[in-house]
Amino acid sequence: MQLSENGRLLNVGVIGLGGRGRGQLKLISGMQDVKVLAVCDVYEDRMKQGMEIAQGAIGTQDYHDILNMPEIEAIFIFTDWNSHIRIAIEAMKAGKEVAMEVGGANSVDECFDMVAVAEETGKKCMLLENCCYNDTELTLLNMIRKGVFGELVHCQGAYAHDLRDEIGMGDVKRHYRQQNFLHRNGELYPTHELGPIATYLNLGRGNRMLSLCSMASKARGLHAWLKENRADTDLANAQVNEGDIVTTMISCANGETILLSHDCTLPRPYSRGGVVRGTKGVWMEDNHSIHIEGKTPQKEGDWSHSWESDKEWLKEYRHPLWDAYEEFGNRGGHGGMDYLVLRAFVESVQNHTEAPIDVYDTAMLMAITPLTEQSVAMGGAPVPIPDFTHGQWIHARKQKGEGTYAL
Amino acid sequence: MQLSENGRLLNVGVIGLGGRGRGQLKLISGMQDVKVLAVCDVYEDRMKQGMEIAQGAIGTQDYHDILNMPEIEAIFIFTDWNSHIRIAIEAMKAGKEVAMEVGGANSVDECFDMVAVAEETGKKCMLLENCCYNDTELTLLNMIRKGVFGELVHCQGAYAHDLRDEIGMGDVKRHYRQQNFLHRNGELYPTHELGPIATYLNLGRGNRMLSLCSMASKARGLHAWLKENRADTDLANAQVNEGDIVTTMISCANGETILLSHDCTLPRPYSRGGVVRGTKGVWMEDNHSIHIEGKTPQKEGDWSHSWESDKEWLKEYRHPLWDAYEEFGNRGGHGGMDYLVLRAFVESVQNHTEAPIDVYDTAMLMAITPLTEQSVAMGGAPVPIPDFTHGQWIHARKQKGEGTYAL
Repeated sequence: MQLSENGRLLNVGVIGLGGRGRGQLKLISGMQDVKVLAVCDVYEDRMKQGMEIAQGAIGTQDYHDILNMPEIEAIFIFTDWNSHIRIAIEAMKAGKEVAMEVGGANSVDECFDMVAVAEETGKKCMLLENCCYNDTELTLLNMIRKGVFGELVHCQGAYAHDLRDEIGMGDVKRHYRQQNFLHRNGELYPTHELGPIATYLNLGRGNRMLSLCSMASKARGLHAWLKENRADTDLANAQVNEGDIVTTMISCANGETILLSHDCTLPRPYSRGGVVRGTKGVWMEDNHSIHIEGKTPQKEGDWSHSWESDKEWLKEYRHPLWDAYEEFGNRGGHGGMDYLVLRAFVESVQNHTEAPIDVYDTAMLMAITPLTEQSVAMGGAPVPIPDFTHGQWIHARKQKGEGTYAL
Repeated sequence: MQLSENGRLLNVGVIGLGGRGRGQLKLISGMQDVKVLAVCDVYEDRMKQGMEIAQGAIGTQDYHDILNMPEIEAIFIFTDWNSHIRIAIEAMKAGKEVAMEVGGANSVDECFDMVAVAEETGKKCMLLENCCYNDTELTLLNMIRKGVFGELVHCQGAYAHDLRDEIGMGDVKRHYRQQNFLHRNGELYPTHELGPIATYLNLGRGNRMLSLCSMASKARGLHAWLKENRADTDLANAQVNEGDIVTTMISCANGETILLSHDCTLPRPYSRGGVVRGTKGVWMEDNHSIHIEGKTPQKEGDWSHSWESDKEWLKEYRHPLWDAYEEFGNRGGHGGMDYLVLRAFVESVQNHTEAPIDVYDTAMLMAITPLTEQSVAMGGAPVPIPDFTHGQWIHARKQKGEGTYAL
């Protein structure tokens, strides 16, 4: 396997130039076989910053200008969570292939609309779930497919990231998280952990999520932070709806369970809280450890099974894409995964191949957010998870996408 | 604080002499101020083993013989899970103070019956939840009460213990777990983690659990084990009802959430999966780590908050009972907690003081099991958790029990 940037030249537009958008724009602009023709942000200063990054690109504050450019084949959406799907739908209708930054949906209905438009137009709509391409997660996928864990039974993940500062300063820093945390209460950001788990459990390819239950703790962390750090503003007394810890249990058609935790407003170190459980073993992110029955050595003095560091296992089973990536030379962006997920989209467009994260995956992952809001509001009542594939999920298959970036 | 065994002499009977019962009997028999007058097991060989441990004690295979002995003031129940409450009720009616090994209830109704009989008779009915007296858990309680974690928001715990061997050999080894795992599907063993969490969150003393949702994964681990290790028996093809991982979310009156995991039939190292989350910090058992805002040093190179080992914190905040216990000399039994919980009961009977785990706590903790079975059967639907205190839980108070063993 070898990486390259020598596909057919792809003309793209980039919409949304906040911190994340500009970071991704740098990576896209740097690709030899991609040309950024236009950049857009509603704020003029951000638009100008984008134009400086993508030298020669047109700048606009109205994304419709980009959708109207016939020479643009694909667009990237890095706007606020709440506008992703709306823009994606308009873009597909305008004949563009779409890649979209992560974030939860506003409603299940807009997810269905997104799928319908993708089917009507034949355009791609790929969620740029970078964690699907992270070194550890890809390696785990490799281990799972090689049977290291036996039959999978249960997976866990989290978005455990103390964002009090970013959220609390959202009004000043023009960051959309603040309004979401003040008004909503649910699993607002499920895809960093659920994206990789979806590949582990073959969701949409012979398995699917059937139902979920969500519960939210009280909301104390952000409120306390605002009291202390924004005492001079109305935010000090603002009602915070988002519970500090939102827990979600998901049941799958093939009997597996998934546990998610959304955890952004209390002090704690970052974690994606990964846990993989199978009939032959367990991997746990938080202690960087693994136990594989019959293989992990028993430590002297341990009355129970022993843990061992996951380091050597991750090395032994490293996914070939990551070996190829290291040889190619690190392009940056969260350690490389940003680059890889962007390339996965670019090359699937260049080669007219299936996106490794297709519109059905995108809808499935994004729909979790509004479904958890409903369940939280109903005291944890089970909520059915729709099948966006119209029954096509029952066809088991080994991977999605083709070639280097297949998942 | 100083420990001793110089209370008034307490005459007791011990019912149930399997592995656990005999271990506890050794500790009880060794106490200077306790006399074991009678021991009981339905199996003759176990009864005789008990008589060898408690020299001078009468042996019987019918526990009613013990309940009929007027000179016995208190009884200890170490029988199978399913008979605890039935025997406890009969014992209280016979005028005995009751201590009971842990395990879940069969039904909510029997928990209500147990409470009613305790109220009618004025007898104690204490769950011997040893983990409430474990070094780490008591120290955490101390830290929580001293405000180290700020306002508590969320707690987690698990019974993560690979018991495939014990369960799979249950028919041969006369162990009750086998029938429970074959027939039931729920959080069968919640109290080792929930007992301590109940103290952290003041459940029954100004707070209470309101509702829960449970989900079970498919059952694969035990079945695979039986196929491999009991191929010559009907068990190789037996239906296993208990899911490998049963997850339970609980909501509390004061807004906290609790997450429990029952995890006994897949390979893994032991853990009680403890997590404490508050507005000022986090403690996590699986990586033996803590992060306290403004106190935990930031490690160089960490882009997120840093973890630090919990070792020094646990040392600094060690519960005085454990210092006293070490000075007194380790009496054994799961590192000491067995001895301490037994003494907590013995001294509360000797001194006619409130048991630190009273019948309301006992009912509350044990009722979780049948409630989770109901929720699992209904796809995770929320199930109300009854108030066994008849409204008395709203009275906040600092502790239960008095003196040395107060919780």
